[in-house]
Amino acid sequence: MSRSIGGMRSFSTAASSLLADATAASQSIRQPSSFQVFRDVPQLRQLRRQLLQKDRTVGFVPTMGALHEGHLSLIREAARENTDIFVSIYVNPTQFGVTEDLSSYPRTWDSDVAKLEELNKELAQTEATAGPETGKGRITAIFAPTSKVMYPGLPPSSEIEGHGSFVTITPLSSKLEGGSRPVFFRGVATVCMKLFNATTPDRVYFGQKDVQQTVIIKRMVQDFLVGTEVRIVDTAREEDGLAMSSRNVYLGARRRAVGLTVYRSLKAAADAYQSGKTSRADILGAAHGEAQRVISEQQVLSPSERSLFQVDYISLADPDTLDELEIVNPTKGGVLSTAFKMAPLEETKPNEDCGLGDGQVAVRLIDNLILQPRA
Amino acid sequence: MSRSIGGMRSFSTAASSLLADATAASQSIRQPSSFQVFRDVPQLRQLRRQLLQKDRTVGFVPTMGALHEGHLSLIREAARENTDIFVSIYVNPTQFGVTEDLSSYPRTWDSDVAKLEELNKELAQTEATAGPETGKGRITAIFAPTSKVMYPGLPPSSEIEGHGSFVTITPLSSKLEGGSRPVFFRGVATVCMKLFNATTPDRVYFGQKDVQQTVIIKRMVQDFLVGTEVRIVDTAREEDGLAMSSRNVYLGARRRAVGLTVYRSLKAAADAYQSGKTSRADILGAAHGEAQRVISEQQVLSPSERSLFQVDYISLADPDTLDELEIVNPTKGGVLSTAFKMAPLEETKPNEDCGLGDGQVAVRLIDNLILQPRA
Repeated sequence: MSRSIGGMRSFSTAASSLLADATAASQSIRQPSSFQVFRDVPQLRQLRRQLLQKDRTVGFVPTMGALHEGHLSLIREAARENTDIFVSIYVNPTQFGVTEDLSSYPRTWDSDVAKLEELNKELAQTEATAGPETGKGRITAIFAPTSKVMYPGLPPSSEIEGHGSFVTITPLSSKLEGGSRPVFFRGVATVCMKLFNATTPDRVYFGQKDVQQTVIIKRMVQDFLVGTEVRIVDTAREEDGLAMSSRNVYLGARRRAVGLTVYRSLKAAADAYQSGKTSRADILGAAHGEAQRVISEQQVLSPSERSLFQVDYISLADPDTLDELEIVNPTKGGVLSTAFKMAPLEETKPNEDCGLGDGQVAVRLIDNLILQPRA
Repeated sequence: MSRSIGGMRSFSTAASSLLADATAASQSIRQPSSFQVFRDVPQLRQLRRQLLQKDRTVGFVPTMGALHEGHLSLIREAARENTDIFVSIYVNPTQFGVTEDLSSYPRTWDSDVAKLEELNKELAQTEATAGPETGKGRITAIFAPTSKVMYPGLPPSSEIEGHGSFVTITPLSSKLEGGSRPVFFRGVATVCMKLFNATTPDRVYFGQKDVQQTVIIKRMVQDFLVGTEVRIVDTAREEDGLAMSSRNVYLGARRRAVGLTVYRSLKAAADAYQSGKTSRADILGAAHGEAQRVISEQQVLSPSERSLFQVDYISLADPDTLDELEIVNPTKGGVLSTAFKMAPLEETKPNEDCGLGDGQVAVRLIDNLILQPRA
């Protein structure tokens, strides 16, 4: 899914939150004007079949709501390649661990729908001004299922040894982000298989931002002979390079500025590769050097001025297997990826912009850059 | 899959047998006349799409080849409900455990194709004599993929902790047959998800004979929102009641006669239920009594006259969860199922019909009866 939660944790099981999830979603349904909303599968299948028989094409963008510019860029890309776009909005319980707070995940139905309606207007405008080849597609359907629709059998388990019906992709799922979140990619693969079966899209769209997710979904589509094409869309970034993320709203100005180190560290490593380096030591050394420089700078500042963070990992990995690389094969390239944990602010100043949660929410930032094969 | 192997066991890993599998299949491909054979997915998808756009319907019958009357009855049923029938012939490595001999599984391509061609003639004949409503469908496509097509990623593992891309349905997969074959239903669910994705059928057909498989496939289709209907077809039986099975050819006359006890034991239990009994003790007591009676009869015969067997299990279970039942709820019914292990013949007589393998192959026979809800 195009967004994952971090930082906020409290005890809650996925199963016990299902009811709250379904209730919250059904209360807040508002019918939009330029697309249909489907809460169950049969009617959606009927629409899909009609489109197929009319030789129309469907691009599918799965989300957990809380839509931001990154999601919209996926939809714009889908509009270039398909006549119809299906967007799903579903907060999937099985990708949350038992210690992660599913119930506090933001539900922003009305603003999500408003953004999608706005985007449909923009797509019509683009077509009117730039011609039908540039933006022919429109959002046709929102699939916003209840958890009873998505998990009709047993309540799904969030424990790694728990029972249920799952898609497992190993060992990919246990690397990188999967190291600290053992059920996460099982949940992602499982819900995506369900969503793909419900929507049977010609193409599915995922953001490069969640690189491990892109590798796992491509593997799943290949291994399970899923009849769809996987499109990966470049990470949407702020002007200075910070990757867009739903979590950025928790940063505030001070942590926002220091958090850019995530991108700068990766960029330093990518520059090393571009300049001809191929060894892990040289490439990751550049990233760690940049991160360490900023950590040292911050440590000497006062608690009301600084923003401390920890590097969770910086990885240099094979693009297909995500195995760590000692040497990059320049004909194949690699994936640089990282996770930083931005600590809560120690002291805040009067009127300081501390972001949602007043700077007290730890924020895990992830980002990645692809090392393209060199000619 | 509509057939599973038993009895013959020797050491072989699924992965090491893949090459042999693919080679054997490609050597023996003979092009039939009344349907197309597909060895890869893209062309099959193209045909499927054309059929969809012409509003034709596809019934899918997955098999591991070695076709017998049971498979043909599935296809006849598919012909009543669909215009086109896809049959897959693929011996799936991931449902064989590391100690089960995948490489010795029978490959009978030419005779399988001949049977399917014969059946297409019969279906045309049926329509000509009985009208289009009774047998309008024809076998249109055989999907006979290589293992490279079915498992394009890592070589699939046959170890329970092994790596790969799998569909897991728990706890259903570990009950009954899954107790002694821990990877079996993971392999079945995984290959069926792939086959369903490759063929996207309107309906899929499975035999009641493999009852646990039917329960798991129904659960998989429900839980993963697979857009197909699951049809379960009554077990094809010989006149005296013995369930048809590819393994029956290993029995020979003597073990064939005694092997009927499998069916008779279940029938005794079903009769007890029909006469009003609902307790496990009463219902299964009838089955065990019948089996024990025959065991005692056989034990007093000489080694050249008798056929010994062991009861692996006799189960009385809930039809959805396969949990063992102490009491049958008459409004819900239950599933009676059993596995017997027919020992090799101890001594044979001159000119005795001992079946394939001269009576030396241990044969595991399974069967089941559904206890229907009582009015």
